Amino acid sequence: MTKLKWGMIGGGEGSQIGPAHRLGALADGRFELAAGALDHRPEVGREYAQRLGVAADRAYGDWKEMLQGERDREDRVDLVTVATPNSTHFEISKAFLEAGFNVLCEKPMTVTVEEGEELVRISEKTGKICAVNYCYSAYPMVRQARAMVANGDIGKVRLVVTAFSHGHHGDATDADNPRVRWRYDPAMAGVSGQFADCGIHALHMASFICNDEVETLSADFASCIASRELEDDAMVNFRMSRGTVGRLWTSSVAIGRQHGFEIQVFGETGGLRWFSEQPNQLIYTPVGGRTQIIEKGEGGLYDEATRLSRVAIAHPEGFPMAVANIYCDLADAIQGQARDSLPVAADGVRSMAAVHYSVDSAKQGGAWVDARPPMFR
Amino acid sequence: MTKLKWGMIGGGEGSQIGPAHRLGALADGRFELAAGALDHRPEVGREYAQRLGVAADRAYGDWKEMLQGERDREDRVDLVTVATPNSTHFEISKAFLEAGFNVLCEKPMTVTVEEGEELVRISEKTGKICAVNYCYSAYPMVRQARAMVANGDIGKVRLVVTAFSHGHHGDATDADNPRVRWRYDPAMAGVSGQFADCGIHALHMASFICNDEVETLSADFASCIASRELEDDAMVNFRMSRGTVGRLWTSSVAIGRQHGFEIQVFGETGGLRWFSEQPNQLIYTPVGGRTQIIEKGEGGLYDEATRLSRVAIAHPEGFPMAVANIYCDLADAIQGQARDSLPVAADGVRSMAAVHYSVDSAKQGGAWVDARPPMFR
Amino acid sequence: MTKLKWGMIGGGEGSQIGPAHRLGALADGRFELAAGALDHRPEVGREYAQRLGVAADRAYGDWKEMLQGERDREDRVDLVTVATPNSTHFEISKAFLEAGFNVLCEKPMTVTVEEGEELVRISEKTGKICAVNYCYSAYPMVRQARAMVANGDIGKVRLVVTAFSHGHHGDATDADNPRVRWRYDPAMAGVSGQFADCGIHALHMASFICNDEVETLSADFASCIASRELEDDAMVNFRMSRGTVGRLWTSSVAIGRQHGFEIQVFGETGGLRWFSEQPNQLIYTPVGGRTQIIEKGEGGLYDEATRLSRVAIAHPEGFPMAVANIYCDLADAIQGQARDSLPVAADGVRSMAAVHYSVDSAKQGGAWVDARPPMFR
Amino acid sequence: MTKLKWGMIGGGEGSQIGPAHRLGALADGRFELAAGALDHRPEVGREYAQRLGVAADRAYGDWKEMLQGERDREDRVDLVTVATPNSTHFEISKAFLEAGFNVLCEKPMTVTVEEGEELVRISEKTGKICAVNYCYSAYPMVRQARAMVANGDIGKVRLVVTAFSHGHHGDATDADNPRVRWRYDPAMAGVSGQFADCGIHALHMASFICNDEVETLSADFASCIASRELEDDAMVNFRMSRGTVGRLWTSSVAIGRQHGFEIQVFGETGGLRWFSEQPNQLIYTPVGGRTQIIEKGEGGLYDEATRLSRVAIAHPEGFPMAVANIYCDLADAIQGQARDSLPVAADGVRSMAAVHYSVDSAKQGGAWVDARPPMFR
Repeated sequence: MTKLKWGMIGGGEGSQIGPAHRLGALADGRFELAAGALDHRPEVGREYAQRLGVAADRAYGDWKEMLQGERDREDRVDLVTVATPNSTHFEISKAFLEAGFNVLCEKPMTVTVEEGEELVRISEKTGKICAVNYCYSAYPMVRQARAMVANGDIGKVRLVVTAFSHGHHGDATDADNPRVRWRYDPAMAGVSGQFADCGIHALHMASFICNDEVETLSADFASCIASRELEDDAMVNFRMSRGTVGRLWTSSVAIGRQHGFEIQVFGETGGLRWFSEQPNQLIYTPVGGRTQIIEKGEGGLYDEATRLSRVAIAHPEGFPMAVANIYCDLADAIQGQARDSLPVAADGVRSMAAVHYSVDSAKQGGAWVDARPPMFR
Repeated sequence: MTKLKWGMIGGGEGSQIGPAHRLGALADGRFELAAGALDHRPEVGREYAQRLGVAADRAYGDWKEMLQGERDREDRVDLVTVATPNSTHFEISKAFLEAGFNVLCEKPMTVTVEEGEELVRISEKTGKICAVNYCYSAYPMVRQARAMVANGDIGKVRLVVTAFSHGHHGDATDADNPRVRWRYDPAMAGVSGQFADCGIHALHMASFICNDEVETLSADFASCIASRELEDDAMVNFRMSRGTVGRLWTSSVAIGRQHGFEIQVFGETGGLRWFSEQPNQLIYTPVGGRTQIIEKGEGGLYDEATRLSRVAIAHPEGFPMAVANIYCDLADAIQGQARDSLPVAADGVRSMAAVHYSVDSAKQGGAWVDARPPMFR
Repeated sequence: MTKLKWGMIGGGEGSQIGPAHRLGALADGRFELAAGALDHRPEVGREYAQRLGVAADRAYGDWKEMLQGERDREDRVDLVTVATPNSTHFEISKAFLEAGFNVLCEKPMTVTVEEGEELVRISEKTGKICAVNYCYSAYPMVRQARAMVANGDIGKVRLVVTAFSHGHHGDATDADNPRVRWRYDPAMAGVSGQFADCGIHALHMASFICNDEVETLSADFASCIASRELEDDAMVNFRMSRGTVGRLWTSSVAIGRQHGFEIQVFGETGGLRWFSEQPNQLIYTPVGGRTQIIEKGEGGLYDEATRLSRVAIAHPEGFPMAVANIYCDLADAIQGQARDSLPVAADGVRSMAAVHYSVDSAKQGGAWVDARPPMFR
Repeated sequence: MTKLKWGMIGGGEGSQIGPAHRLGALADGRFELAAGALDHRPEVGREYAQRLGVAADRAYGDWKEMLQGERDREDRVDLVTVATPNSTHFEISKAFLEAGFNVLCEKPMTVTVEEGEELVRISEKTGKICAVNYCYSAYPMVRQARAMVANGDIGKVRLVVTAFSHGHHGDATDADNPRVRWRYDPAMAGVSGQFADCGIHALHMASFICNDEVETLSADFASCIASRELEDDAMVNFRMSRGTVGRLWTSSVAIGRQHGFEIQVFGETGGLRWFSEQPNQLIYTPVGGRTQIIEKGEGGLYDEATRLSRVAIAHPEGFPMAVANIYCDLADAIQGQARDSLPVAADGVRSMAAVHYSVDSAKQGGAWVDARPPMFR
């Protein structure tokens, strides 16, 4: 079983995201770290990559050097993970896709809708994978929920209600902390704060489980800490293409909520609930029946849930394994087994459209607007 | 300790609401059932009242007969509960208030905002109590939450998020059941379905705990079961007079949610959560600190929580005792001890305004509108 | 509907137990308080009874006076509740039973096994009810559990595991507080502390749900606070007459557990769990199937659960309504409708036997002993 | 950063335990799989090892071949994991320890107490690590609990109550399934069934968190499925060396409990609760105070918790990361940083002693017996 070769851009020493990707990529032995440009300080990055086992000639100083170095190798990397600051995602992903690499891009995939559309087109043209790291969608019980909906187990979906609301930016005395402040500063974060950061995970989850797309939306944004230019709390109502009603709340000032990412899906013949802090259970109620607890690892789950679970029932699998599941799907897809659950550029651009058009809607006092990227209208 | 004399209109045999009021009124021995017009069929009502211990001459055939019979008695009832169909609340409450009786009216207090304003004025003029049965506000831990907010324990309130969403009307095959259908038929239910039925409890709760009023709102209504003319799902965003952001979701098609009434209050220095299905706990997180479980009956609670709790810590007290707490407050108020937590006509009319103006907002695509009754602008 | 006449002994002003009984007895309008000897200070008791609405000639100074006064009245009380200090339960209950009154005795019913057996015999001889207030058994979902077991829904019961463990006596600095200390002082509490106080509720619950009796037991007692002569923590293993294995843990030093009364019942084809702090749900798992949440008030419950529930599904009913359910069963039984779920003297004497023989077992290093009162061997 | 070289014995294709160890060993990049004897069928094992990336000359046919092949290599493996059938643990571990290898042995470490004592002595003599895979002890919040106890945060521990009770062997119709049956067959499982399989995890956890040892015990064993010769349910009461009272329940017929491993620790000034199905929270109640939820990843945890947590607060980490934490401690210990939390041979032999002496106690009707291995008396 030859391992796939993996390269990483960003995720240097001390970052949170680097270890999460390495753990995810390496956990199942499908990839090996073969190349990297891990830090914005070339020497630091080169040294760290080598400490992580990368050969000296593939420990690059920056992404351009890496692109140069890898493009003509026979043993070039099979996958490049882009975990750099948000504003650079587009340029780097574009360059690697065009050079024929598969890419996993951190979210948000791009800053603008136009950039997102361009990545969709490049991915289509080159036939290379442009995945986006909506890793929560890779929890086994989220996959189970999606499969149940697809199979009609809860009937036509009427209503989806989701939240990604935490309280970790709720302390006004900490609001000037640079690690917090940049998210609410348009110069650094773009048009949106909390919705672009967390809300889009919830929006993707709604589309993912319902296997449907958001068509129109109406938004209400608020800066609960008044000094913030961008929103730290948002409510977005939406409608999906098959008529499903959607409600999405996201907040970073909900003190006492730790992660606070949850989804409820209500169909004609049943309801589902999932909560990211207890990800190994899916709560299911058939209409007129009793609420049931579906456990990760139990017998009779859909394949999508079973294949992404490593240890027995009631042995919890957490966030690192969800990231690992994204890499499993990537390995399968690279090796020729299509994985249509893998979040890709089309998902990324839909998110960016929802962000931009939510901002527009909120500015217009909640007016209903088209939520779709122009290319998908 | 002479018991107060209590009369009831509506709540006949087989109704759900009758036993809840009798249990609430009688539980603490402050009231005795002295008069009643319990059924729309005069003879049935008279007979039932006597079976419940009402003297034959005070077992009335209808509310007009009861008003006639009671108004000139020396031992007239101290309190009249109005638990008749919604459309009759106004007329009956008005008549008894004007005749100098204290009234507890079921919700919704009136059908129109104008009627609501009239009851406020009559109550003021006569000096008689016109209470509204927002009984969830009388759970001890809801009172604790209100007292904590008033005392500044969570700082200025930034955000309040509430839901009253259940799934008991989610079965389309049962939608023609008359006990369900009327709620979504404008001829019987008025301008609103689920929001008028359940949403106003949540809206009242938000105002009650924050001790603040809703000033503006923007609404999104949906009929998830398409045959319904009125909404079975609604989202209302709002702002309160001191700037608090509000989010309220109400649904009757959320299959798997049983009662589904909950509230989260986020302030500058802490957050609170309360859930009506586990009403004896209040979840509190100080900013930067750990989440704590506040238990009904523990030492050191605010007086409003302590005085409305009957049995020791961790002995749960449920819905019947919440209704009983409304009657305790009424008994106190009638006997001269003001209870400013008691929901009254001003609360009732604010609810009706919110219902009507939410309908307007939803029709206008979520436009922000003034939520206040004209008399309070 | 004439109300039954009710008399109470003990439960004076300021006691916890008085209000709980009054609330329970009066909540459903089946009883009226007609007589009372409420306080060990005759004048105080007479005055308080009158304040509660008892006629002056039936407001007695002590229980003997009450027995004298009531026995020859035509309108004598239909039921006497004995809520006096434990050591007096036997004498008072015996006297009233022998005079032809129905009795509800607080737990523990007696101090010795012999006294308990005598009450069983007197109750049989006189045909009068001698009930014991094991009120937790009257929660609707406990009745549902019992009915499920009786109906074979979980097959033959293999194992029952129960606990009644709280932490309210866990503070050594408070151990000399007289309200705590007496429970661990043999001069006042008898042979057992925590097991006699709380453990017997759990033991009764196990027998009640399984509809079976404890036959043998082995006990381990500990005084976690060393200054205590009687146990504040105990484990009792037992076997029931049909071979069911039992495990019972009770503690008063389990800091952080508030009420901590729970039971798990495991049969050949399913398992059940119930927790007194969330009494409105019963957790059920069929063998090989998913865990389900059974809700108080849902459709299709057994009659025993449905008839003892007052308000709709997901409207919680708490401890006061469980006590009220005991009084409902008493009212039914007095009026001729047998209620075999009502805990009676046979249950009381079994508890006392278990207490005494557990003490013996613990002293003998956990030796297995017969748990049955001699009269039931 | 050179990776440590790791060898594995057992854990062949299709086993549950193999992937868990590989994931744990490889997740953090501290080890690489350098050698293996993975299957009892030599060719199958060799082939599988090579598929996992092991060089052909280190893909061995059995453990003796591996010992032979590795002992004289300069680049011999730094750690050998023994994940073979229970009866072979002793022989293999002994051989590798004596040859100067560090060993991680699956539980139970040995079959007899004597063998366990021998491993302790060999480990001492050779100075090599003989670790035992009590991996639940490596959850960050278990480490936090241990650190809190060590730091006196709950005062002297009075009482520890633990359970490892599931229902996965509760189906009598499945009892002859060979994967279930062997556990209750003395010929294959030795003297104990469920206690040896799961109970010892709970027993180790009690000792681990309390940092104390079990001194005496009294046991009650039952075969709830009568055809089983060994117990499927057991209760063990114990006392620790500093007087702590212990209660341990283990069962495999508790239908509805999925994993069911939990522990409660009660001290003079506080209580702790942890549950393996929600391993990222630790519940803490200071005496006289409110229950608090301690979250993995929150600020201010003890180092032992912080260093073993990879992703941010409220991003759950599950069972695979707990196993990985054992390997982290092993890597540290091999590289010279002592990790006294690592479970070692002394822990393994104490478990075996508890198993054997519990069996004795149960046979003697619950007699209290010394629980310690002779070498530690």
